[in-house]
Amino acid sequence: MYRIGIDLGGTNIAVGVVNDAYEILAEHSVPTRAHRPAEQVIADMGDAVETVLAKAGVTIAQCRSIGIGSPGTCDSGTGVVVRAYNLGWDHVPVCDMLSRRFGIPAYLNNDANCAALAETVAGAAVGCKNMVLITLGTGVGGGIIIDGKIYAGTAGAGAELGHTLLILDGEPCTCGRRGCWEAYASATALIQQTKRAAAEHPESLLADVPPEEITGRTVFDAADQGDALAQQVIHRYCVYIGAGLTDLVNALAPEMILLGGGISRQGEKLLGPIRNYVRHNCFGQEQGMVPVIAPAKLGNEAGIIGAAAL
Amino acid sequence: MYRIGIDLGGTNIAVGVVNDAYEILAEHSVPTRAHRPAEQVIADMGDAVETVLAKAGVTIAQCRSIGIGSPGTCDSGTGVVVRAYNLGWDHVPVCDMLSRRFGIPAYLNNDANCAALAETVAGAAVGCKNMVLITLGTGVGGGIIIDGKIYAGTAGAGAELGHTLLILDGEPCTCGRRGCWEAYASATALIQQTKRAAAEHPESLLADVPPEEITGRTVFDAADQGDALAQQVIHRYCVYIGAGLTDLVNALAPEMILLGGGISRQGEKLLGPIRNYVRHNCFGQEQGMVPVIAPAKLGNEAGIIGAAAL
Repeated sequence: MYRIGIDLGGTNIAVGVVNDAYEILAEHSVPTRAHRPAEQVIADMGDAVETVLAKAGVTIAQCRSIGIGSPGTCDSGTGVVVRAYNLGWDHVPVCDMLSRRFGIPAYLNNDANCAALAETVAGAAVGCKNMVLITLGTGVGGGIIIDGKIYAGTAGAGAELGHTLLILDGEPCTCGRRGCWEAYASATALIQQTKRAAAEHPESLLADVPPEEITGRTVFDAADQGDALAQQVIHRYCVYIGAGLTDLVNALAPEMILLGGGISRQGEKLLGPIRNYVRHNCFGQEQGMVPVIAPAKLGNEAGIIGAAAL
Repeated sequence: MYRIGIDLGGTNIAVGVVNDAYEILAEHSVPTRAHRPAEQVIADMGDAVETVLAKAGVTIAQCRSIGIGSPGTCDSGTGVVVRAYNLGWDHVPVCDMLSRRFGIPAYLNNDANCAALAETVAGAAVGCKNMVLITLGTGVGGGIIIDGKIYAGTAGAGAELGHTLLILDGEPCTCGRRGCWEAYASATALIQQTKRAAAEHPESLLADVPPEEITGRTVFDAADQGDALAQQVIHRYCVYIGAGLTDLVNALAPEMILLGGGISRQGEKLLGPIRNYVRHNCFGQEQGMVPVIAPAKLGNEAGIIGAAAL
């Protein structure tokens, strides 16, 4: 049997067919053109499913289910996207609409949760019962797996791990609160930290880059060239990531924490100092339970695979 | 059938027999005299079980299980108390020793987790599948129930909810880290906040109380008499509690959060402002998922009932 996974994003809808080993047999992508009526977006999702089935040479009768990974708050119990700001969706019963069209069960969960699930079925956390995936991107996304299943809390409102405090009343966060982990540990925050450091230290290599050209990589490139300020910015950024991970260890004690998103491609430059921070700060310190902290493996395919695994 | 619950504390061992409705039929308590060899403490626990069975007129053959709620890190899978500083225990196989003596299964979990479980079987959260109990005492204890069962993480190392950050590098915490929630929201922290406020404002009613006589109630008594400073201290203390609860809402989205411990007896004086804070700060704010926030119900009996329910 096969499964269909739909990774519904603000920009693109990516659809794939996977086999029982969660290998993607065929993939197809169409623009979301969000903020159209939800019915139109869902019709396009359905058409993309048909295209991808034809590509893979698989019929719908050979498919067990359709899974949808959506941004925003998703109620997996009812199959309703409760609220997704970047789609402009409010209470959209996406599962009902797709299962009616295709006559097979449709399942829904949040995209960050799907990415975490994907890592446990086909990525860096295969066989892991309790794990957390943190995605360091524009924001800080979280997916929690407990007992091999996605834990999303009441009505799918949980696992907003980027929106737990690092510093009460600290930096403003996109969620309206101040001091959230996301406001310190996201790629967006790192860019801001790099810009501030550059502005304050005109002697640094960082100040040679025009502010509008500073990206999440700038500070790593400058550090590689031996810039002391860049190394300081990275050190502090690792403290921010490590502090949030320490909270996760103390609260959830997962077997494994995976880091995803573009920044995580810096690998050991980040992971080394982060592991060190967590080991020295978690409850029980050296005698405490420190989970494996490793990079996520699946990248862009995580969305499709995780949705298919729902 | 009946169940035996043992609430193993640093000061006393409280043992009870409960019926299928989790009513305590008989109870018996003996001093722990911690820091003796663990074998001696466990022998006393066993003797207390025999005493309480005789009191209740129940035989061991009528009992399904013995449950033990212990301080510290408990591995429920192996029945071993991994580390309990206030008992001086290190890797004590308490379940093996008790089940060998009595010939019935023995189960173990952390005392804060047992208290949370107790509330779901016989307290303020009956029927609730996902809930969190926060105990505001000397420290800030946490118990997490997911899908009707205790969630304690890998090797029982999780649910240390008092040891998640409120302010990175803030007040020193008993765990060795700085800025933990416990360092702001425990009764100990409230006493410290009261003392500081009193020292800085000699005109306040708080300054009339000799520092060594200040307890967790002092500030509430002064506020009741209209003292503005005391009201400010309470307001800020509610922010500290509310901020930590907001993190729990965003991360776990439980159906219900219960507050226990002596301070929670202040009732609506605390709960009103705390609910208000969470509603305005949680992810999605007014549209977000705000769980019921209510006082715990079981008090001292929670330990025995929760242990029996393991």
